[in-house]
Amino acid sequence: KTGRRSLSRSISQSSTDSYSSAASYTDSSDDETSPRDKTQINSKGSSDFCVKNIKQNEFGRREIEIAEQDMSALISLRKRAQSEKPLAGAKIVGCTHITAQTAVLIETLVALGAQCRWTACNIYSTQNEVAAALSETGVAVFAWKGESEDDFWWCIDRCVNTEGWQPNMILDDGGDLTHWVYKKYPNVFKKIRGIVEESVTGVHRLYQLSKAGKLCVPAMNVNDSVTKQKFDNLYCCRESILDGLKRTTDVMFGGKQVVICGYGEVGKGCCAALKALGAIVYVTEIDPICALQACMDGFRVVKLNEVIRQVDIIITCTGNKNVVTRDQLDRMKNGSIVCNMGHSNTEIDVASLRTPELTWERVRSQVDHVIWPDGKRVILLAEGRLLNLSCSTVPTFVLSITATTQALALIELYNAPEGRYKQDVYLLPKKMGEDINTALVSFIRSSFCDRNPSSSAHIDVLLCCLSELCFETQEV
Amino acid sequence: KTGRRSLSRSISQSSTDSYSSAASYTDSSDDETSPRDKTQINSKGSSDFCVKNIKQNEFGRREIEIAEQDMSALISLRKRAQSEKPLAGAKIVGCTHITAQTAVLIETLVALGAQCRWTACNIYSTQNEVAAALSETGVAVFAWKGESEDDFWWCIDRCVNTEGWQPNMILDDGGDLTHWVYKKYPNVFKKIRGIVEESVTGVHRLYQLSKAGKLCVPAMNVNDSVTKQKFDNLYCCRESILDGLKRTTDVMFGGKQVVICGYGEVGKGCCAALKALGAIVYVTEIDPICALQACMDGFRVVKLNEVIRQVDIIITCTGNKNVVTRDQLDRMKNGSIVCNMGHSNTEIDVASLRTPELTWERVRSQVDHVIWPDGKRVILLAEGRLLNLSCSTVPTFVLSITATTQALALIELYNAPEGRYKQDVYLLPKKMGEDINTALVSFIRSSFCDRNPSSSAHIDVLLCCLSELCFETQEV
Amino acid sequence: KTGRRSLSRSISQSSTDSYSSAASYTDSSDDETSPRDKTQINSKGSSDFCVKNIKQNEFGRREIEIAEQDMSALISLRKRAQSEKPLAGAKIVGCTHITAQTAVLIETLVALGAQCRWTACNIYSTQNEVAAALSETGVAVFAWKGESEDDFWWCIDRCVNTEGWQPNMILDDGGDLTHWVYKKYPNVFKKIRGIVEESVTGVHRLYQLSKAGKLCVPAMNVNDSVTKQKFDNLYCCRESILDGLKRTTDVMFGGKQVVICGYGEVGKGCCAALKALGAIVYVTEIDPICALQACMDGFRVVKLNEVIRQVDIIITCTGNKNVVTRDQLDRMKNGSIVCNMGHSNTEIDVASLRTPELTWERVRSQVDHVIWPDGKRVILLAEGRLLNLSCSTVPTFVLSITATTQALALIELYNAPEGRYKQDVYLLPKKMGEDINTALVSFIRSSFCDRNPSSSAHIDVLLCCLSELCFETQEV
Amino acid sequence: KTGRRSLSRSISQSSTDSYSSAASYTDSSDDETSPRDKTQINSKGSSDFCVKNIKQNEFGRREIEIAEQDMSALISLRKRAQSEKPLAGAKIVGCTHITAQTAVLIETLVALGAQCRWTACNIYSTQNEVAAALSETGVAVFAWKGESEDDFWWCIDRCVNTEGWQPNMILDDGGDLTHWVYKKYPNVFKKIRGIVEESVTGVHRLYQLSKAGKLCVPAMNVNDSVTKQKFDNLYCCRESILDGLKRTTDVMFGGKQVVICGYGEVGKGCCAALKALGAIVYVTEIDPICALQACMDGFRVVKLNEVIRQVDIIITCTGNKNVVTRDQLDRMKNGSIVCNMGHSNTEIDVASLRTPELTWERVRSQVDHVIWPDGKRVILLAEGRLLNLSCSTVPTFVLSITATTQALALIELYNAPEGRYKQDVYLLPKKMGEDINTALVSFIRSSFCDRNPSSSAHIDVLLCCLSELCFETQEV
Repeated sequence: KTGRRSLSRSISQSSTDSYSSAASYTDSSDDETSPRDKTQINSKGSSDFCVKNIKQNEFGRREIEIAEQDMSALISLRKRAQSEKPLAGAKIVGCTHITAQTAVLIETLVALGAQCRWTACNIYSTQNEVAAALSETGVAVFAWKGESEDDFWWCIDRCVNTEGWQPNMILDDGGDLTHWVYKKYPNVFKKIRGIVEESVTGVHRLYQLSKAGKLCVPAMNVNDSVTKQKFDNLYCCRESILDGLKRTTDVMFGGKQVVICGYGEVGKGCCAALKALGAIVYVTEIDPICALQACMDGFRVVKLNEVIRQVDIIITCTGNKNVVTRDQLDRMKNGSIVCNMGHSNTEIDVASLRTPELTWERVRSQVDHVIWPDGKRVILLAEGRLLNLSCSTVPTFVLSITATTQALALIELYNAPEGRYKQDVYLLPKKMGEDINTALVSFIRSSFCDRNPSSSAHIDVLLCCLSELCFETQEV
Repeated sequence: KTGRRSLSRSISQSSTDSYSSAASYTDSSDDETSPRDKTQINSKGSSDFCVKNIKQNEFGRREIEIAEQDMSALISLRKRAQSEKPLAGAKIVGCTHITAQTAVLIETLVALGAQCRWTACNIYSTQNEVAAALSETGVAVFAWKGESEDDFWWCIDRCVNTEGWQPNMILDDGGDLTHWVYKKYPNVFKKIRGIVEESVTGVHRLYQLSKAGKLCVPAMNVNDSVTKQKFDNLYCCRESILDGLKRTTDVMFGGKQVVICGYGEVGKGCCAALKALGAIVYVTEIDPICALQACMDGFRVVKLNEVIRQVDIIITCTGNKNVVTRDQLDRMKNGSIVCNMGHSNTEIDVASLRTPELTWERVRSQVDHVIWPDGKRVILLAEGRLLNLSCSTVPTFVLSITATTQALALIELYNAPEGRYKQDVYLLPKKMGEDINTALVSFIRSSFCDRNPSSSAHIDVLLCCLSELCFETQEV
Repeated sequence: KTGRRSLSRSISQSSTDSYSSAASYTDSSDDETSPRDKTQINSKGSSDFCVKNIKQNEFGRREIEIAEQDMSALISLRKRAQSEKPLAGAKIVGCTHITAQTAVLIETLVALGAQCRWTACNIYSTQNEVAAALSETGVAVFAWKGESEDDFWWCIDRCVNTEGWQPNMILDDGGDLTHWVYKKYPNVFKKIRGIVEESVTGVHRLYQLSKAGKLCVPAMNVNDSVTKQKFDNLYCCRESILDGLKRTTDVMFGGKQVVICGYGEVGKGCCAALKALGAIVYVTEIDPICALQACMDGFRVVKLNEVIRQVDIIITCTGNKNVVTRDQLDRMKNGSIVCNMGHSNTEIDVASLRTPELTWERVRSQVDHVIWPDGKRVILLAEGRLLNLSCSTVPTFVLSITATTQALALIELYNAPEGRYKQDVYLLPKKMGEDINTALVSFIRSSFCDRNPSSSAHIDVLLCCLSELCFETQEV
Repeated sequence: KTGRRSLSRSISQSSTDSYSSAASYTDSSDDETSPRDKTQINSKGSSDFCVKNIKQNEFGRREIEIAEQDMSALISLRKRAQSEKPLAGAKIVGCTHITAQTAVLIETLVALGAQCRWTACNIYSTQNEVAAALSETGVAVFAWKGESEDDFWWCIDRCVNTEGWQPNMILDDGGDLTHWVYKKYPNVFKKIRGIVEESVTGVHRLYQLSKAGKLCVPAMNVNDSVTKQKFDNLYCCRESILDGLKRTTDVMFGGKQVVICGYGEVGKGCCAALKALGAIVYVTEIDPICALQACMDGFRVVKLNEVIRQVDIIITCTGNKNVVTRDQLDRMKNGSIVCNMGHSNTEIDVASLRTPELTWERVRSQVDHVIWPDGKRVILLAEGRLLNLSCSTVPTFVLSITATTQALALIELYNAPEGRYKQDVYLLPKKMGEDINTALVSFIRSSFCDRNPSSSAHIDVLLCCLSELCFETQEV
């Protein structure tokens, strides 16, 4: 409904969104040299990469190892790869956030037989150390934190356009890579067996291409699986709303009056978490079914204007525009907090706050005090952008689900017999190619059924089953 | 029960505890000059202070203003001060953590008529910018982050021993200041009207002095009020367990199996929070009443050994020693997290992990991976010290309660008619000196009773009532 | 999913199900005369009814008045009827449970202009006093508690086959009335404008007729609206599981170990309620998505055999057969409780308990102790039938939703221009006939939007909106 | 705090309170003969009892057996009695509610070696079948449901004054038995080793006697143990508020607006339960600490007048008088429910509703509609008496705790060496007479520590530990 993953990746906007979800620990802003101007070489003698500082690879390796701890499903895929190489011969070009979790995905693809070249889908989101660690082990990574727009396209180009190597699979997040190949190297598509796309925006672009008859390879939409939706919205937001508020404001939740605008999956998650920690929660909702659910779940359904003067925190999760207007912001009380968990940055009318009589004071990273002439301060988080992407981290566990789905989609498209997939956009099939699927599912099912409950946690086992889930549930 | 505030402040230990609960944003470690060697002067021409860098005062002022937003009770005390100055003539020497919240307290004391000199009770906890902001407005602050032990005592000495100024009130947190005055300037006690002490350790020292017949002024124990206990333990830990775990590990709570050792107030808070976010929570408890409460609250009461192999997270909150032994750590599964929310750093037998066959890897600040020979990693937080002090921040709201209590204790002791308080340790009286109390209580009660429910949040009003609470509840 | 309303009403089974959801307070079993053999006359001189005892009408009237309190939506429909009579000319023959709540529906239909003749869809479920009260005010009711099968059909016949009156609308619950008309009076269908059917079974029969080309009038399926499903399952079961267990066993929930088989809507409701009251809840689930939800909601997902020896209560909510087998019942501990909240009475293998070595002891109504040779007792509720229908009452509020939907479906079908509905089964349209709908919706919407939040409870207003909900949500 | 067990048993009031907490299944009101006028004889030929109908004993036996299922602690005491008879020689006269649970206590005392004569502490609360079952096995019971005041004293007298038998222990609930012996048979006290008293009222009477120097034997106050208080209030009320409301009104909780007056233990229990089931809960509270707790637990603290017009349900739990006034009842909305969970029947000003302009309509047992001239109905439960005693049942589990405590107090007093207890009122000692205690505690502790977690539920084991709890916790 709301599209937490709505990192729309057109160059005009989302590839340049601020993105703080992964801390970079060793960055020193003193090194001003552009990576493009550096000559770097990894310990194996290769220079087919471009990262901030290859020497940071050890720190990055550690981060990757930490991430592996919570990504059992990918690790179990790797184990399977010891006997089979379902991606042998695959040449994958990828364009995603480059984080420790992505690295686990990439290294899994390599373990399964693929060759990979990788670039970033956002100019801010790269963890430089992780990029260094990947480059050190031979993956051709072109990405660093703080690319310019020109850098961004240069990196994409270096991934696609390299001598003696032509991709036959695309993994995209936002559609910029796909767009670039369409524009610059249309011939590449002759060899491409398929595109796997994760984001709302990228999927939207693919459907448009398909509608216009211009989609020339099969594409797999991994954005719309039930599991991904539930995790990215309900379960993930239930935790990240608390995390985002704490890290930015250290606010105590107990006793606070909070209004949540919207009672979809995201709103349900936010409401449940804040209620559980002792906040008094109100809900605004225009859909009568959702309003009734809020009511039956014990929340007072109100109009925003009824409570605007008394609430301590406003959280928007509607997917609509201008849910909180300037007029309402004028009536909020001193010290109240406003933030957005919904779609894009339009729910709070932030533009209306950029008027001369209001003073903006940046008190911390992602935290602005907007000060009224009478001294009243309203605390605006992330300038109205997505709180969970800007001010908290997405748990590895959740990213693991997405990454596993991506890996399986790549395996499926790469191994599908000719003709199974046309030039269209697909959801992951309930049953994949039998040769692949049967063995895979039986392996996973056995993990689940034969588990020893006294020696292993459930969630691990269930995570291992997610590859199965992907197939069985997306059409629910 | 557990003493979350048990920052025992003897120089031998707690004044040198690591303390990360307040971020310092502008610190540059490049300035290596000791503040003692600098000559600094504030904009009013005074040099009666010693801080890291007086120029950081504007940033500190902003932090103080942010803190004021959530400290309504102190602000309401200030308003009252416009007509009365209950601390006129008071000369207060203070030794506490120097944070934005403390600054709000100090500036309230000044507004009520007091003169203040202030130093830090911990060598790491000072927010340099806040110290600068206080110095800029004329409070004599001697403190910076990263003092040596010699610096520590030098700062205390500079607060007490200054020409033409002798304190008549002491506000202490840990007892080091009191100890110093006893040792070096016993004559000062002739003028002292009373000591207000907040910490477990400091209160313990005072009772020892009293028992030995050496306490020569009245002292007020503000550590043992019901409100403070409830807030510092149950309500505060309910939030900080989540915050501390998230900031250090980004772990997802949903579906995780967690064992909480101890079901006192701290344990109750941890259990409630984690259960609410979808964790499966087990409890160990040796007190039968607490065990029964855990049971009736829906937690399985187990012995640690029953679940040690399956849990993802262990949290200790017992106040005992070696609750988690090396033997148990040996049996934990790969990737599990161990941390402590209880008293001091002895609940997890961390010492037993410092053996040659185990590798320690510091992966982030406050996060160590302890690696077994077979590759198993256990994630140890804050080296077993208090997670909430080391890895999360204490909400301003909670600190506000303590600060208000301290202010009221100072007012009471300073204004009490001679003879009301002997040379003994007191809890805040239910009814303070009538002249002070009546007006104060009636003011606060009116805030509560005459409030306009549609225009103000409850919690603000209740916070304003906390001064009243202090009087009415501590003997409950 | 589970079909809590699966009162399949074929004469062979569900019309003869035991049904205790409404207490009958004045029944005296001493009056053995069959109502068919009595001559009764109401105070208006009519004898066109057949009930147990017309003199019980006052008591019944009171029950109806109590029910009206919680059925705001129907009452608001009645108010509207003062100016319009959307059912003027309608001759409705109805076959439903005859309870106080049904009476509120019937009297609303009469207020809207309809003539009604009514009979019971179950031989046990009639509240005799309510039947008397309806008869007293002129509704032709033919029903009593404890009909024989012959009585059952006789009553239906007397409703349909009466001189000088032919129905033009059918309201059915289970399909027996529809079946009877098809079989005995096919000509009646020439006048019938439509059938409204509520039950799973009845709807199933209608679809079969439609498939076979034998459906000769439009039919409205009111069973499958989102609202009804959510209410009948999640919200309703969340309360009735507690109610049913308490009324039968007085068991304390706190600290009890409970296993819930199935985590669909019914299971989710049961789990939430029992967890909230301090039970330790385990879940069994074979669907991986539901299992993952259970996990993320904080329940340990287990196989039944893992916990069978330790649990105090087993509750089945799967919709499957033999979820609890004799083998498992053999291993349950002394004093444990077994009950069913799922579909029909097949989830617990009750038949397997009817063997010579086990002793059955009926200890209360709906409560059997099954006693093993070693003295172990297992407490079986409602002989494995639906606990919520057998041992608790369905809240009026929930019945109100169904009744309002039925009323609106009748209005829609009766007023639809010829040709809008063919001989098929329909869901209630999102937008009904504009003449009817516009006024209705605007009336209701105004109740919602113009409400005075300080003077009315939300739920009342929302209930009034349910007629709107019915239209807008069922295709969600 | 509030005294849910405040069945003050002075003849003037509480012994004549209505009491419906245990259903009587076979009562036929047709048998009008007074038991005093009947001649009955049990199967052993004894006629030393006076009950309604000795022939009902089989039904009563079944109820006792059901109760035994949930009273593990007493049953474990009985097992112990096979080797020791700590009550050998004890002649106990008891005056309590006579229910299945009491029967389990009495039969345990008998198994431990005591002879018992028993009577009822309330004229309505006797389960006639249980009284019959006890009489059948030889316990001399004098009690029936619906005694007159004269019967009440006659029964007490028959217990005490019997040829050839003189009591040496008293177990009282309310103090009427003790009062009677003081007044009529003061010489009996020469042989009495001690009195065990459970109720608030009875304990109060004992303290008065003690103060006046008139208490001539040791007395044990079993009312004030932590466990009993927690169970009778927080945990028990958390369940009985739901049960009481459902059984009387079948109200749906989800979405209802509820105001709870008072946030002590009882209020906390009510709030937690209703919040968990989806009600929107407000709290009124005058104690600032409790108000703050309510606030931090997520409830809006209001004045009753703020919400009186909008709430659906009012529940009083304050222990004060006239918490809900006529003026407020006048402003409640149509269909709202008012009930009392607090102390005695004075919280709601029910008397003020007995005015001519209001019509009272008894719609069900314990349910009155009070009807205003404009037709508004307010639903008053149990005429303002305790809802949980009048309209729900107390779980056996809770009664088991009290009964175990009573048994242990009797054992302790009976076995204590002379001189240990003076003529005073005592709490159960932490350590009882070593001879008794050591063996007992070690037995119980072993049950707890050596339990096999896979084969037994926790709560059972914990219940077995309650005897230990009694000793260890009451001075907490």
